[in-house]
Amino acid sequence: MPVPRPQPPRGFPIAEYEARVDRAQARMHADGLDGLVLSGPHNFRYFSGFNSQSWESPTRPFFLVVPREGAPIGVLPDIGGPGLETTWVTDIRTWPAPRPADDGVSLLAGVLESLPRRFGRVGWEMGRESVVCMPLIDFDRLRSTIAGLEFVDGSPAIWSLRMVKSPAEVARIGTACRAANDAFDVFQTRIRVGDSEVDASRLFRIAAMECGADTTPFVAVCSGPGGYSQIIVGPRDVALDDGTILFIDTGVTYDGYFSDFDRNFAIGHLTDDARRAHELVWDATEAGIEAARPGATSADLWRAMTDALGDAGAGGSNVGRSGHGLGMQLTEPPSNMPGDETELVAGMVMTVEPGLEYAPGKMIVHEENLVITEDGCELLTRRAPREMPVIT
Amino acid sequence: MPVPRPQPPRGFPIAEYEARVDRAQARMHADGLDGLVLSGPHNFRYFSGFNSQSWESPTRPFFLVVPREGAPIGVLPDIGGPGLETTWVTDIRTWPAPRPADDGVSLLAGVLESLPRRFGRVGWEMGRESVVCMPLIDFDRLRSTIAGLEFVDGSPAIWSLRMVKSPAEVARIGTACRAANDAFDVFQTRIRVGDSEVDASRLFRIAAMECGADTTPFVAVCSGPGGYSQIIVGPRDVALDDGTILFIDTGVTYDGYFSDFDRNFAIGHLTDDARRAHELVWDATEAGIEAARPGATSADLWRAMTDALGDAGAGGSNVGRSGHGLGMQLTEPPSNMPGDETELVAGMVMTVEPGLEYAPGKMIVHEENLVITEDGCELLTRRAPREMPVIT
Repeated sequence: MPVPRPQPPRGFPIAEYEARVDRAQARMHADGLDGLVLSGPHNFRYFSGFNSQSWESPTRPFFLVVPREGAPIGVLPDIGGPGLETTWVTDIRTWPAPRPADDGVSLLAGVLESLPRRFGRVGWEMGRESVVCMPLIDFDRLRSTIAGLEFVDGSPAIWSLRMVKSPAEVARIGTACRAANDAFDVFQTRIRVGDSEVDASRLFRIAAMECGADTTPFVAVCSGPGGYSQIIVGPRDVALDDGTILFIDTGVTYDGYFSDFDRNFAIGHLTDDARRAHELVWDATEAGIEAARPGATSADLWRAMTDALGDAGAGGSNVGRSGHGLGMQLTEPPSNMPGDETELVAGMVMTVEPGLEYAPGKMIVHEENLVITEDGCELLTRRAPREMPVIT
Repeated sequence: MPVPRPQPPRGFPIAEYEARVDRAQARMHADGLDGLVLSGPHNFRYFSGFNSQSWESPTRPFFLVVPREGAPIGVLPDIGGPGLETTWVTDIRTWPAPRPADDGVSLLAGVLESLPRRFGRVGWEMGRESVVCMPLIDFDRLRSTIAGLEFVDGSPAIWSLRMVKSPAEVARIGTACRAANDAFDVFQTRIRVGDSEVDASRLFRIAAMECGADTTPFVAVCSGPGGYSQIIVGPRDVALDDGTILFIDTGVTYDGYFSDFDRNFAIGHLTDDARRAHELVWDATEAGIEAARPGATSADLWRAMTDALGDAGAGGSNVGRSGHGLGMQLTEPPSNMPGDETELVAGMVMTVEPGLEYAPGKMIVHEENLVITEDGCELLTRRAPREMPVIT
């Protein structure tokens, strides 16, 4: 089945994974860590290339240990062994799972005990924007039984790596964005007045797959008369009647990397108020894009967009930030918000996402994706039209 | 956009949520818990009806507190407030998020401190098949700061409820299964010899959406000459050449409930060995279906399927069990395996999933979904043909 446009080949050369581990190990020396234990699907895949949807099942935990020196060690259920063997990881330890009384705990303990000790600390996904994907009672047991090895927050180390993308990673995010952009074009020709939010979700997901997305994990569909009160719950079985503003925010993936941007559509006709609100958030998005360059901080991006919204944006919105990092996850650090002084550097992929509640319960949110370059930024999305499209 | 067949309406009446909370509170009295704290998307939705994909973003945690007596309390970021207001939950506390220095910690602490104390224990998703979806450093902080309230494993309580489905839940799982069955029928007319695993994934996902699935979170596509070595990594960019066995295991959802079953296809032609292996796992599946009745245990299901495989199944497979519970998640307790003595009762939805490695690296796995009834079981899937279909 042909997909319309050329796409980067799936998977990365081994050199890419080696570079990731090298950077991680340099950071471990700096942070005083003897290793990192990765349990979540994205971190596991980031260092190994293991492409599995198994985390949809909560039954069996998977671990990848990246030691301060040497090659990563896979500690995973038997069911994952043959799959991990197809990656660059060669040190693979498996246990027969499920085994509720000891699902990886003793096997992982052995690996951690054998790590060469220098700092006596091992980093886990314990901090901001991170989750340890295993039963906490097992984590507590592990934590209390390995003498002389402290479990500490490895999230800053992990995110410092993942935040800056390689050209191959950017190409994948760009491909996901292109699929989503193409999907919006197709979607617009198929959606009809009177269809429901559920219909819109289905039409968009089908279009995204037709246009080259691998998966469609996040398709938020919201709507309301003249605007929407929120952007994260839905889709609902409610009709898109004349006067409705339809919002679709979408994360589709290509080769494990996300797009994350939204589009607004006026159903039937576009009121002057909604038109002005959309133009205002469009202009604020433009200001965010212009501010995106090496040396600026994510707080600077927030400031640029907030200033562009002017008095109209004084009430803010319930979103709490105006964009964020983007990569293997729909949202990643940093956040465009006051206080986040993360300095942008070339290779960071960001969303710019200003929002406006222009009347009570009537929000308009807009979003584009970009990559920071040596001297500014490049859009990864095709810019939305300033005037909101009307579905008739 | 019409979807071919009638589907149950989305969402549940309030009585359904009230019944869930009633059962939870009865269990809390029995287990000595003053409350349950739910942080994962499925448990949050199970008790509230909150239908959001926000857990794709790791930035903001969401909590639902179900006290031992009284109504549930939502503790969530501002961005989720308006969405939760559309559910039956009325006690809603929000904070402006992201707020990395205190993302819900103090707000949740206040709620937990105000819970009427009787047992001095509150249950979290800490145990088997469970994950606490928040940064562990925040969890540790919370755990150490609330005097006289112990954080214990609430997973047995939670799973005891979720394991037994209401008729409305079964109807949703049945709808998801029907969409997946229809999708396999459509898929079979579209896939061609020489297409890749990636093509197969795309074709199946599109067909599933066309056939009424809401989402397609899990589509595992694996293949190999005469069989496959594993069932969780993929899809890959490899061609489905003559002699390949193609395996698709799929979890699609309807209204938040999953299907989980697989189908095998012979590409080009079917060898006698693969045919026999498929018939054997088909027969073993039949034995599992026959054994599924109230009073049997999930270990009994395993035994029935293993006996049916006979000597051919002596080597087992790397899957480690032959089926499991099914509901809001792709896999749920119990597991069909030795030692899991969970007694089946009416309303439990199970998969029966025997697997066989009939030659080194050549597995055949087969799976159907069923619900336990008062006097046996009912299939929720349309039974696969005993002879593996051939794609030409």
